Amino acid sequence: MQNRLIVALAFFPLLAQAAEPAPPLDGYSPAASLAERDWEAKFRDLPSPHNQREFMRRLTAWPHHVGSSYDKVNAEWLLAKFKEWGYDAQIETFDVLFPTPKERKLELLSPRIFVASLTEPAVNQDPTSNQAAEQLPTYNAYSGDGDVTGPLVYVNYGMPADYEELDRLGVSVKGAIAIARYGNGWRGVKAKVAAEHGALGCIIYSDPGNDGYAAGQVFPAGAFRPKTGVQRGSVMDTQYPGDPLTPGAPSVPGTKRLALADAQTIQKIPVLPISYADAQPLLEAMDGRVAPREWRGGLPVTYRIGPGAAKVHLKMLSNWGQAKLYDVIARLKGATLPDEWVLRGNHHDAWVNGAEDPVSGLVSLLEEARGFSELKKRGWQPKRTIIFCAWDGEEPGLLGSTEWVEAHAEELLHHAVAYFNSDTNGRGFFYAEGSHVLEKFINSVARDVMDPETDMTVWKRRQLLDISRARNPEDREEARHRTDLRIGALGDGSDYTAFIHHLGIPSADIGYGGETEGGIYHSIYDDFYWFTHFGDPKFLYGRALSQTIGTAVMRLADSELLPLDFAGFADTVKKYMGDVQKLLKTNQDEIRERNRQIDEGVFGAVSDPEKPVKAPPAREIPPHFNFAPLENALDALTASADRFAKEVARVQSAGLQVNAATLDRVNHLLMESGPKLTDSSGLPGRPWFQNQIYAPGAYTGYEAKPLPGVLEAMDRKNWAEAESQIPRAAAALQRETALIDEAAMLLKDAGK
Amino acid sequence: MQNRLIVALAFFPLLAQAAEPAPPLDGYSPAASLAERDWEAKFRDLPSPHNQREFMRRLTAWPHHVGSSYDKVNAEWLLAKFKEWGYDAQIETFDVLFPTPKERKLELLSPRIFVASLTEPAVNQDPTSNQAAEQLPTYNAYSGDGDVTGPLVYVNYGMPADYEELDRLGVSVKGAIAIARYGNGWRGVKAKVAAEHGALGCIIYSDPGNDGYAAGQVFPAGAFRPKTGVQRGSVMDTQYPGDPLTPGAPSVPGTKRLALADAQTIQKIPVLPISYADAQPLLEAMDGRVAPREWRGGLPVTYRIGPGAAKVHLKMLSNWGQAKLYDVIARLKGATLPDEWVLRGNHHDAWVNGAEDPVSGLVSLLEEARGFSELKKRGWQPKRTIIFCAWDGEEPGLLGSTEWVEAHAEELLHHAVAYFNSDTNGRGFFYAEGSHVLEKFINSVARDVMDPETDMTVWKRRQLLDISRARNPEDREEARHRTDLRIGALGDGSDYTAFIHHLGIPSADIGYGGETEGGIYHSIYDDFYWFTHFGDPKFLYGRALSQTIGTAVMRLADSELLPLDFAGFADTVKKYMGDVQKLLKTNQDEIRERNRQIDEGVFGAVSDPEKPVKAPPAREIPPHFNFAPLENALDALTASADRFAKEVARVQSAGLQVNAATLDRVNHLLMESGPKLTDSSGLPGRPWFQNQIYAPGAYTGYEAKPLPGVLEAMDRKNWAEAESQIPRAAAALQRETALIDEAAMLLKDAGK
Repeated sequence: MQNRLIVALAFFPLLAQAAEPAPPLDGYSPAASLAERDWEAKFRDLPSPHNQREFMRRLTAWPHHVGSSYDKVNAEWLLAKFKEWGYDAQIETFDVLFPTPKERKLELLSPRIFVASLTEPAVNQDPTSNQAAEQLPTYNAYSGDGDVTGPLVYVNYGMPADYEELDRLGVSVKGAIAIARYGNGWRGVKAKVAAEHGALGCIIYSDPGNDGYAAGQVFPAGAFRPKTGVQRGSVMDTQYPGDPLTPGAPSVPGTKRLALADAQTIQKIPVLPISYADAQPLLEAMDGRVAPREWRGGLPVTYRIGPGAAKVHLKMLSNWGQAKLYDVIARLKGATLPDEWVLRGNHHDAWVNGAEDPVSGLVSLLEEARGFSELKKRGWQPKRTIIFCAWDGEEPGLLGSTEWVEAHAEELLHHAVAYFNSDTNGRGFFYAEGSHVLEKFINSVARDVMDPETDMTVWKRRQLLDISRARNPEDREEARHRTDLRIGALGDGSDYTAFIHHLGIPSADIGYGGETEGGIYHSIYDDFYWFTHFGDPKFLYGRALSQTIGTAVMRLADSELLPLDFAGFADTVKKYMGDVQKLLKTNQDEIRERNRQIDEGVFGAVSDPEKPVKAPPAREIPPHFNFAPLENALDALTASADRFAKEVARVQSAGLQVNAATLDRVNHLLMESGPKLTDSSGLPGRPWFQNQIYAPGAYTGYEAKPLPGVLEAMDRKNWAEAESQIPRAAAALQRETALIDEAAMLLKDAGK
Repeated sequence: MQNRLIVALAFFPLLAQAAEPAPPLDGYSPAASLAERDWEAKFRDLPSPHNQREFMRRLTAWPHHVGSSYDKVNAEWLLAKFKEWGYDAQIETFDVLFPTPKERKLELLSPRIFVASLTEPAVNQDPTSNQAAEQLPTYNAYSGDGDVTGPLVYVNYGMPADYEELDRLGVSVKGAIAIARYGNGWRGVKAKVAAEHGALGCIIYSDPGNDGYAAGQVFPAGAFRPKTGVQRGSVMDTQYPGDPLTPGAPSVPGTKRLALADAQTIQKIPVLPISYADAQPLLEAMDGRVAPREWRGGLPVTYRIGPGAAKVHLKMLSNWGQAKLYDVIARLKGATLPDEWVLRGNHHDAWVNGAEDPVSGLVSLLEEARGFSELKKRGWQPKRTIIFCAWDGEEPGLLGSTEWVEAHAEELLHHAVAYFNSDTNGRGFFYAEGSHVLEKFINSVARDVMDPETDMTVWKRRQLLDISRARNPEDREEARHRTDLRIGALGDGSDYTAFIHHLGIPSADIGYGGETEGGIYHSIYDDFYWFTHFGDPKFLYGRALSQTIGTAVMRLADSELLPLDFAGFADTVKKYMGDVQKLLKTNQDEIRERNRQIDEGVFGAVSDPEKPVKAPPAREIPPHFNFAPLENALDALTASADRFAKEVARVQSAGLQVNAATLDRVNHLLMESGPKLTDSSGLPGRPWFQNQIYAPGAYTGYEAKPLPGVLEAMDRKNWAEAESQIPRAAAALQRETALIDEAAMLLKDAGK
């Protein structure tokens, strides 16, 4: 009985499928599409949660930061694995500047003495937390060297807006030591902005209101940050990633290196991360004004701003040595288009044992690689070459990926189709950020992956999440009715940066999350014990990630016509332009209103004389910009994208009967489409960032700034520069438009 | 030189005044206005901060709650003062149900034993904090009697929306003891809603995130609540205020009293307020789900919801005895219209020593009374009778004012012009809530009082605050350009309730605040020491309050034509109707959208299976209401109000040359205008509340619900009842319109 029922249940879906066959995949002929779907379905059965768990156990057994012995051991193990699975694999090495702590000291000198422990103690239940000899001490890499003493000033999250508030409260960090809480912006920005405002040093602590006891039970009882947990992390400045001494060039023998003093991306002041156990005595000792309501964290203290009685001594000196990076690069040669490369990467270095960050993503990559090797045994071979990259040195500053991309820039510009990245992965919802020419493609993949916790695809679950999170009816209706889920733009924070922002190669960062919570980020507690209790203990989302990116890599590598979509790209850039226009209007309205209130005396009238708050400074109202170049370029891009889409639809509906030479020429044009968005002179003040459409923000760190030339200048209230960047973005779109027109023409002629 | 400069500076304002003489006050002939302005200016020089300070020292020397010996001593002292100042003063007494604690016990039984202290210790620096024998223990008056044991459930603020969230989290308080934090709604609602959901008992604690160390330094170093501070307070239910045993009738000999068991306003379950020192061990002991982010307070614990291991025993028994109230009533007889009464009140009872609440307001009242007696010596006598009321029993449930109004209802309906209330006063900004027929009048007063901290009037400073706080450009432009500052509607929470909500008498509650902060509300620390360090230490806003209400009382008492304004009233009710219509639309949209998301499966999809959250229940979409009766009534009211205003303007610009009999008839009509808004059958379920335009919310406590019949039914999602209340509100406005028309006609005829 039971067997018959299973047969019956299995039968109906087949019937349904037969009745309504899926349309061919974009860029595939009907026959190729059928075969591809079959191989993809076989692939998605292969990734094994058990393997991922055992890989993680192996890779996180010891701390494996850049320069550690286990970092190299891991690289060699990864190399062996790829080789075992039949890949053509090598380790590529680079020698980079990598500071490690030489001396760290933080002490409260008055009103009483307290010496910060600056250590993370082991936890009994957690078998790898006691590897003190192998652990990197708690520090912020690329902190400035310094030995400073001064009063404490609490700067909230330490972002630019917090300093505007401090100005209004009459408090300056000049000659003081800023203490900021982690969160709400990248740690490197906290250090940089503190220095810009004259701080002598900067302390960054993890407030329990964010990821400690306020959020949930702390480790080891729960997932959240215990009082002794410290978030390590890089504070390398954002002019360029990679080795601070070799901007734009690979750190290999022969490359000229800057003197340490000339490196632009090392912070100017000493910076030190601390736990909330170390922070509490400092905050308790502070006097001065009570912090504004939004500035208060979760410690049982009255958050006060200082400066006053609380004086601290902060010393941070680094060993400014070189470390060797071990990038593991593994190739699966394409059968028919070996010179077209689909790249897939995840870093392998960690701050300490790094189970969540980055091994949760890396084990998914490994199961993709193993899966492909299984498929190969069964007869599959990708049309294009697939390159797996296990990067070293991501944590200190995207070192391994940046140096590798800089070393292989010319090849990549000729051969790269796209780069797929992952990093930390957890339970929850599918997400993707990336180049919008890939938006439609990524959506097609997400529609074919089942969510492990519900009976729907990861695409559907994400759509329902987007509906529930929409902030207004318009966004909600778009979430309901737009064919594709919108994907976000890429900012910074993982290894796609050199691909997309330096070279313009279409890239995507894909993962799952939103349900895994915790507070062990960059601490010794991010390890196998934590991840298998609180992360993705059954590795079900690890498998989903393998299925997702594995499918994407196969589908792109096997396509006959590369499924890049310019209509979605044009739609998104139009939206970004609309956002810039709205932001300009908001800036105009807000500054006009504020200037008016300054004239009316509003700020003086509402200020309590016992706790005076100064009026903000009056500001120039931003002028109207000439958006016409961008509007015209976007109209042209949209028209071309539509023409191209029409031609693609036509040849696709005709079974993709296009001669190989034409397909080849079109595919090569499409491979040039990403780099067309770059401009070799880069963004103002950041020449390494060449993409004119996508960039991370200079003062936001991880967050993306689409149309960056314009937006960044607006952030600096440099209205003239902002307007001057509009034609540059327009020019990038015009180059793209010309390319799309050429591709469309080729397809049109081919169809005649 | 210096002297000459002073003369010059003094001279120019005089010149300016001479050049542009102020227009006559509304309701005054030019000559009467000049004389009135002169007397008012003289009056505003009289209130003395020093006197207020000494009165406060005297009145707060000992705890003076209802039934205490010092409560009576204070009443007798107040009586003597009024008599000394030449008032015709009496004490009127009422015998009311006033429960005091007989037995209080709160203990954690598991997972460990902890016995709550339920005490507030004395503070060395604070000389009155050690009067333990005279202090009322910490309790919530009119708690139910009970001796219960059960698991703890944390219910956030314990308001209805919190229980909807608990339902979605799968947690019930049935058979449990609810622990709620103070704030975000009236404490009585917390107890009532807990009982409605099946809780056995309710604990209410003061979270330091709201008024403890998170907000600022705690007493005695700062103004905020120390860990042992407890907020006493009444939890009397909101069907009617006053003695629970004599609803609608005065508690005097001969009035039939309900049996205790039949009193509707006593809570059904035991309720106990506690400090955060007592709450922390309870919260630490809890398990179950982690509380949603918005539910977390400022204690260094992981806020969890339960129910689970944490079990408590709560016992609360009261002595259900009678107490005698001493209302002090002092009359200054009107010279020409002695039967028209302008009433002015503030309560004198406190929970303990009560410096801020209520003595800060009471000392302002006293300086008004003394000021009038000084003016009288100089020859001034009010046209109308002025009645000062120092109420007893406000804290337990507006006992003194309610019983007095019930005792004198008939007289008040014939004689009362308006009631001006104050209560707690502090540093900061002028505010007024009240009947909107008084809006224009109150604005005229606020324009004549100088702010003590800035060089502008309290009106101007408030306007600038309103500009700075406006939530959208429309509200901001209104704040800039509307002739009068909008005043809020009166809810509940002080002694105006019986005047406006039971009888309909135009009322206003006026004070200063927004800069005085603290956390001593209803604790033993609200005393002279606290107030003179952290409240209004120089009593400058105490003086400003005397100047403000004193001017209002004089100006109303002396007016020839009562300056009630119906155009402002009509404008405000139109706004309230617009708010109701918007709310209905919002309800429709939200319920429609939520039902749609339920159908789409959004809630299931976004729910983490490890921390499931249920979908909310699907709900009936509210129908469209027939607003036409109200719209028509408002159009008619607006037209009549404009006609009346036109007639008033005409006679006013003609020097108010109206014969005395007509003025008298018009004034009497105007005195009936407030009661015209009442309907003797009251609001649905709350017959004591007779005003159809203004009421406090049954589930909000202090907050006002304009158009209460409609809004309250909407809150209960009883759409049919809501719509059925529209004609009742319209009928009230129609009665008002008829009255205004009659008054306008009288003035018109008088002018012929």
